[in-house]
Amino acid sequence: MNIYDVSEKAKVSIATVSRVLNGNPNVSEKTRTRVLEVMDELGYTPNVFARGLGLGTIQTIGIMCSDSSDPYLAHAIYFLERELRSYGYDSILCCTGSSLETKRQYFDLLRSKKVDAIILAGSKFIEMKAKDNQYIIDASAEIPIMLVNGYLKGDNIYCTLCDDRMAIQTAAGKLIASGCRDILYLYTSNSYSGTNKMKGYRDALTTHGLPLREEYIHNCRKDVLSARDLLLELHNSGLVFDAVMTSDDTLAVGAVKYAHATGRSIPDDLSIVGYNNSIYAVCTDPELTSIDTKVEALCTSTVNTLMGVFNGGNVPSRTTIAADLIKRATTKF
Amino acid sequence: MNIYDVSEKAKVSIATVSRVLNGNPNVSEKTRTRVLEVMDELGYTPNVFARGLGLGTIQTIGIMCSDSSDPYLAHAIYFLERELRSYGYDSILCCTGSSLETKRQYFDLLRSKKVDAIILAGSKFIEMKAKDNQYIIDASAEIPIMLVNGYLKGDNIYCTLCDDRMAIQTAAGKLIASGCRDILYLYTSNSYSGTNKMKGYRDALTTHGLPLREEYIHNCRKDVLSARDLLLELHNSGLVFDAVMTSDDTLAVGAVKYAHATGRSIPDDLSIVGYNNSIYAVCTDPELTSIDTKVEALCTSTVNTLMGVFNGGNVPSRTTIAADLIKRATTKF
Repeated sequence: MNIYDVSEKAKVSIATVSRVLNGNPNVSEKTRTRVLEVMDELGYTPNVFARGLGLGTIQTIGIMCSDSSDPYLAHAIYFLERELRSYGYDSILCCTGSSLETKRQYFDLLRSKKVDAIILAGSKFIEMKAKDNQYIIDASAEIPIMLVNGYLKGDNIYCTLCDDRMAIQTAAGKLIASGCRDILYLYTSNSYSGTNKMKGYRDALTTHGLPLREEYIHNCRKDVLSARDLLLELHNSGLVFDAVMTSDDTLAVGAVKYAHATGRSIPDDLSIVGYNNSIYAVCTDPELTSIDTKVEALCTSTVNTLMGVFNGGNVPSRTTIAADLIKRATTKF
Repeated sequence: MNIYDVSEKAKVSIATVSRVLNGNPNVSEKTRTRVLEVMDELGYTPNVFARGLGLGTIQTIGIMCSDSSDPYLAHAIYFLERELRSYGYDSILCCTGSSLETKRQYFDLLRSKKVDAIILAGSKFIEMKAKDNQYIIDASAEIPIMLVNGYLKGDNIYCTLCDDRMAIQTAAGKLIASGCRDILYLYTSNSYSGTNKMKGYRDALTTHGLPLREEYIHNCRKDVLSARDLLLELHNSGLVFDAVMTSDDTLAVGAVKYAHATGRSIPDDLSIVGYNNSIYAVCTDPELTSIDTKVEALCTSTVNTLMGVFNGGNVPSRTTIAADLIKRATTKF
């Protein structure tokens, strides 16, 4: 006797049975009554440990993130936990750090707990070399794997992505339209998301007939003061630039601090564009124009897709969500 | 046959058996060998679902926080999960929001999962009225309850606290010694921690023979722009102040923005002190003097205490950790 029997007999989805079990208000009174009647009829008692004995599901999802103290990932965890909870699922959290070995260990640990699915939050989980991702593909034969803003092709792997490439391309296009010609790009990572942002930057320059110069592209630690110091160094080396685009707001905060340190006026003499539209974007004077990557929508969509998978629905393996450009005071547009 | 039998026969703690089971390197080779031999001898197979059947423990701790996207709590969750993991414990995360009713629902949910303990992260879980905390005291008869920077008296309740009162008192004393006389205090909450910070502010003024004026104490939303706007309003109402102390860095960032908006010079004309020494403290120009509340030490201590409780050790019900004053550029000291 398990949740599947209830779902089948009541002719509703597993997610609906879950919602009834967990008192989620998102169920009509009629459906709730039918589900409760069927449970009564079948003598069903919810048992969170059932799956451990091979009887059903533990109603628990593993969430892996590289670092929950990163603001973007902290928000992602918050929204994922909230959405999963609304469907009656617990979340086991694993903060993995960034080494492949540790990520694999945590992944195996979650599998040994027999979680119903694993969500990989953030784009840091997909490695450049295909063989390093094989353990994820292998696992997907048994449980759904959900990627939040990461991409990996596979039969039971579902990706929800922000359109980072288009977001950066659009913002760069607006900088160019507002008169900027020498646009620095600072990035923190070569992840799937990082690579797409870089493509967006290159596309914009090419589309507008501007030269692609490698000395205008720099890797930087995801850290305010590292970004400030890198810009001071480039400035002192004589590099001329009239705009700074970044793959993260923390770097853009560093760019504001660089401008303050050198007396450059924002946005007249220097434009700055952040990324993620985090709370950092309003900490500076002037406040940052930034790209809102819709982390809440990404997380909601991820959980909805997962529930669709559990229900055996025909769900898309890849969902892309458009970002928003939030205009504040560090750009002329 | 369970982990307790193994621990007893091998004459090591449960935590040590956990560490061996989870491949934690923090165990001597000799101990590891003994534990593995005993497991073999007793035919012990680790079973994460054992506790659900009344056989042992599910090696899972419930962590409740009001909002994991708050930077302080995000760090706390990161450190708690990491420490618990090092002892072989999973963490089930619940982001509860702030209403008492929701907090109670999540608390009951975690108890129904038969977690081994519940950690309440942050001081928002203890209510002003004693009767509103009775459900926590009732639960502590069955499982240990751990409070991170909150306080509640009870037999099986363990609190790890930052000495917020002394931290604010010390910082206010230094402001006074540096010549400030009209010190505003902005706070966000009347939690246990919030109340102690307020006491520290009042103590400092009294100790130095300065008047306690209620018009210098203001509640504010935990939000950069709310703090800026509140200060602009007080400024425009004619209130004279030469320093702003805050219960959170976000408010101090708002104070820097207020100073920029009004042309007041920091720290010559206005001193500002933040709280939590978060990444916000280095986002502003000038950077914030702030109080480091040692969130990592608090979390490590909480988990160590919990492991002591599981081992039946004589552990303190209350541990207090001193904060550090981090001097940057918004104060004259």
